[in-house]
Amino acid sequence: MSEALRITRVDITPVAFKDPALLNAVGVHEPYALRAVLEVHTAQGLTGLGETYADEGHLRRLRTAADALVGMDVHDLGPMRRRVAEVLGGDSGSDGHGLTGMITTSSTVDRVFSPFEVACLDIRGHATGRPVSDLLGGAVRDRVPFSAYLFYKWAAHPGHEPDGWGPALDPEGIVAQARRMVTEYGFTAIKLKGGVFRPEQEVEAVLALREAFPGLPLRLDPNAAWTVETSLRVARDLDGVLEYLEDPTPGQEGMARVAREASMPLATNMCVVAFDELPAAVRGEAVQVVLSDHHYWGGLQRSKLLAGICDTFGLGLSMHSNSHLGISLAAMTHLGAATENLTYACDTHWPWKDPAEDVIAPGALGFRDGSVAVPRAPGLGVELDRDALAVLHEQYLRCGLRNRDDTGYMRRLDPTYEKKSPRW
Amino acid sequence: MSEALRITRVDITPVAFKDPALLNAVGVHEPYALRAVLEVHTAQGLTGLGETYADEGHLRRLRTAADALVGMDVHDLGPMRRRVAEVLGGDSGSDGHGLTGMITTSSTVDRVFSPFEVACLDIRGHATGRPVSDLLGGAVRDRVPFSAYLFYKWAAHPGHEPDGWGPALDPEGIVAQARRMVTEYGFTAIKLKGGVFRPEQEVEAVLALREAFPGLPLRLDPNAAWTVETSLRVARDLDGVLEYLEDPTPGQEGMARVAREASMPLATNMCVVAFDELPAAVRGEAVQVVLSDHHYWGGLQRSKLLAGICDTFGLGLSMHSNSHLGISLAAMTHLGAATENLTYACDTHWPWKDPAEDVIAPGALGFRDGSVAVPRAPGLGVELDRDALAVLHEQYLRCGLRNRDDTGYMRRLDPTYEKKSPRW
Ligand SMILES: [Mg+2]
Ligand SMILES: [Mg+2]
Repeated sequence: MSEALRITRVDITPVAFKDPALLNAVGVHEPYALRAVLEVHTAQGLTGLGETYADEGHLRRLRTAADALVGMDVHDLGPMRRRVAEVLGGDSGSDGHGLTGMITTSSTVDRVFSPFEVACLDIRGHATGRPVSDLLGGAVRDRVPFSAYLFYKWAAHPGHEPDGWGPALDPEGIVAQARRMVTEYGFTAIKLKGGVFRPEQEVEAVLALREAFPGLPLRLDPNAAWTVETSLRVARDLDGVLEYLEDPTPGQEGMARVAREASMPLATNMCVVAFDELPAAVRGEAVQVVLSDHHYWGGLQRSKLLAGICDTFGLGLSMHSNSHLGISLAAMTHLGAATENLTYACDTHWPWKDPAEDVIAPGALGFRDGSVAVPRAPGLGVELDRDALAVLHEQYLRCGLRNRDDTGYMRRLDPTYEKKSPRW
Repeated sequence: MSEALRITRVDITPVAFKDPALLNAVGVHEPYALRAVLEVHTAQGLTGLGETYADEGHLRRLRTAADALVGMDVHDLGPMRRRVAEVLGGDSGSDGHGLTGMITTSSTVDRVFSPFEVACLDIRGHATGRPVSDLLGGAVRDRVPFSAYLFYKWAAHPGHEPDGWGPALDPEGIVAQARRMVTEYGFTAIKLKGGVFRPEQEVEAVLALREAFPGLPLRLDPNAAWTVETSLRVARDLDGVLEYLEDPTPGQEGMARVAREASMPLATNMCVVAFDELPAAVRGEAVQVVLSDHHYWGGLQRSKLLAGICDTFGLGLSMHSNSHLGISLAAMTHLGAATENLTYACDTHWPWKDPAEDVIAPGALGFRDGSVAVPRAPGLGVELDRDALAVLHEQYLRCGLRNRDDTGYMRRLDPTYEKKSPRW
C-alpha cells in the first residue's frame, strides 16, 4: 500500500479583514471580521488548507485538536473526529464559538473538527490530483449559484472611512444595494438580512425588491427577532413573495407554530444547527429548509450527511454563510457542486469583503451570473498567499479584536441598545 | 489535474455456487446460490470488482446500467447514480431482484447502482494505494465482528450428496450447528433464522442456545412469519434472552405495535429497506435497529449515509447478508470498519459456502474470533481468480437456475407448501 499521509504539523493563523457596518438582529458587524487559517502539513510535503472562526475560545480548542491530530493519517477522518471529541472532553464550547450569539447550540466537536477535515480533503486532492468535489462523490453541477446577501448598513463604521457601498437604512437603500450587487455579480436570488428595523419596514423593503426584481427569488432572515404572532403577520404580508422565510422566531416550537400557518417554507440556521437537533425538528415539522454550513456541521462529508438526511426526510437544503475568505468559498463551492439536493442558491458574504483582502492567490474563484465555477485543480483548487496571510495576520494583531461581539460593539456606540429575541 | 479514471468496459459474469438446503419462512434455499461478478475496467488498466444478485431481471438491469456508465469517471458517483436512475426509467424492478420475495420494496436504482459503486471505490483504492475503508472515512476498528448465522436445514438437497453440516430440524440440531460454527469460526454472537417451525419450537431452540452459550448475544429472525399477537407472545417468552428480535411481523405498523410492548429492540431488514421508508419508520417508532446491506442500500457510501441517519435518529445499526462470495465479504468488512456506530456483529452466510468455491484468490480474508481483519491492501484487498470465476460461471450455465425461488423449489418438493406471511 502507499505511504501513509501523516500529519506532522498544523499552523493556525488568526487573521482580520475589513468588514462593513452590517446590521443584524443582535447588533452590528465590527470593523474587522476574524478568521483562522489552518495549514495542515504532512510528512510528504503536502499541505492542506482550512478556514474557520477565530474567537479566542475557538482558537484555543483548535490548538488542542491540532496537537492531538499530529501523527494521524489524513484518510482517518472518523478516527480524527473521535480524537477531537476525546481531547475536547467536557468543553461545552460555549465561549468563543464565533457565531455572534445567534447559533449557540451547534456541536463544539463538529465546529472544531471542520477545518481539519477540509484541510485533509485538500491534501488528499493534491495527493491524487483530484478536486475536492470528486472526493465528495463527484460534481453534479459545474457552477454553484450563490444569492445576493443584502444588509441594512451604515455608510461607515463611526470614525472610519466609508466602505464604498453607501448606507442602506430604508427600502430605497436596500433596493439600490441589491441593484449594484446583482449588476456586479449577476446574482439570481436575493436574501435580505432583517431583524433590524420594525417588521413593517422590512416587509416594505421586500416588496420593493419584488417590484425591482420581479424574476428573482427573495428571502428574508430576521434571525428570530419576531414573536410567533409577528411572524405570522409578516408571512401573510409576504404571501406569494418569498422563496422562504428564514428563522422568523426563536426555537423549534415557535417555528413549528409559524410553519403550520405560513404559506411559504420556513428555513433555519438557528433552530437546527447540529445533528442532535434534527429528530425533534423532523418530528415537530419545525422547518422545511435547513441551511447547512460545513463550518459547524463538522466539515464537508458531514455536510453531505446532513444533505442526505434532508433528502431522506423531505427537507429542503440551502447554505448558510458567515463573513469568510477564499478558502471557505472554495470549500463551499466544492460542497455545493457535490450535493445533488442543494437546489437553493447558497448564502455568501463574499461581496462585503474588500477584494484586495484575502489569504489565497487571486484568480482561482470568480463570480459570473451569480455563480462560482467549481475549481477543477487538485484539492480545494486555491493556493495560500503567504504574504497576504502575513498582512491579514498583522491586521489581526493590530486591530485588537479577539472575539466577535456585534452586540457589545453596538452598545458601545449606543448604550441604550438591548439584545432581545424576539424583539417585535 | 490527474488523468481521469474513465470506465471503458464492464464485464458481468453470473456464477453459481453450492448452497445447503437452508430453510426459511418462504421455503428453502435451492442447491445453488446465484451471484453476479462485476469487473469495471478503466482506460488506465485498473479494474475494480463488484458482487451482486444474479436474477435475470437484475442481470438485464445491470447490463443496461453498465452500458450507460461507460465513459464516466470513477469519482463521479453522484452523477453515476443519477445516470442509472435515468436509464432504468420506469423499471419497477419488481422481477428478479434476487431477494427471494422477502424484500420487495428496496430501491431498484440503489440495488443496481451498488456493485458499480463498490467497483469504483476498488479502482480508486488501487489508484491511490489505499484500502476502501480509508476512502469511506477511515477504519475505526481493525477487525469486523460477524455473527454465527444458524439455519434450520435438511441434511441434503433431495437427490444430492449431504453437505456435511448434517440436519438441523429441532433445538438439539440447532445447538449442535451453533457449537460447530462457534468452534470453527469463533463467533461471539448468534442469530437463528426462524419462521420455519411453530414459534414454540423456535423459542425452545433459542432457550437451548441460551443455555449452551450463556455469554453470547442471541437473535431470532422469523422473517415476518408471525402475527402481532404471536410476536408479543414470543417476545414475552424470550424476555431478557434476545439481543434483538428481527422482523417478527410484517409491515411497519405491525412492528410498531410489537415494539410498544416488547422488552427487546426490534430489528429489520424487511420493513425498512430503502431511504424512502425511513421517515415513516422514525415517526412511527416501528424499529429500533436497522440492518444495512450495501447491496440494496446503494453501495458503501450510501450505507454510510444510512449509518449517519441511524446515528442521528437514535436507531441501532446492524448488517444483513444474503449468500455471498468473497468480493461482498471484503466490501462488508471495509464498510463495517469505517462505520463507527455499526456496533452489532454483522450477519454473514459465509460458513455455508463450500470453502473450495469462490471467485477470489484465497488468503485475503479469514475468520478469527468471529471477526475478519480489515484488508490493508489497496482497494477491496481481494483479487479475482479468473479460473475460479470460469468454474463457477460454468456451474451457473450447467445448473439451470436463473432466478432465486425458495418458494417454488419447496413447492416442487412439497406441493402442499404455501407461502404465507404471517403464517402463525
Ligand atoms: Mg440565517
Ligand atoms: Mg432478516
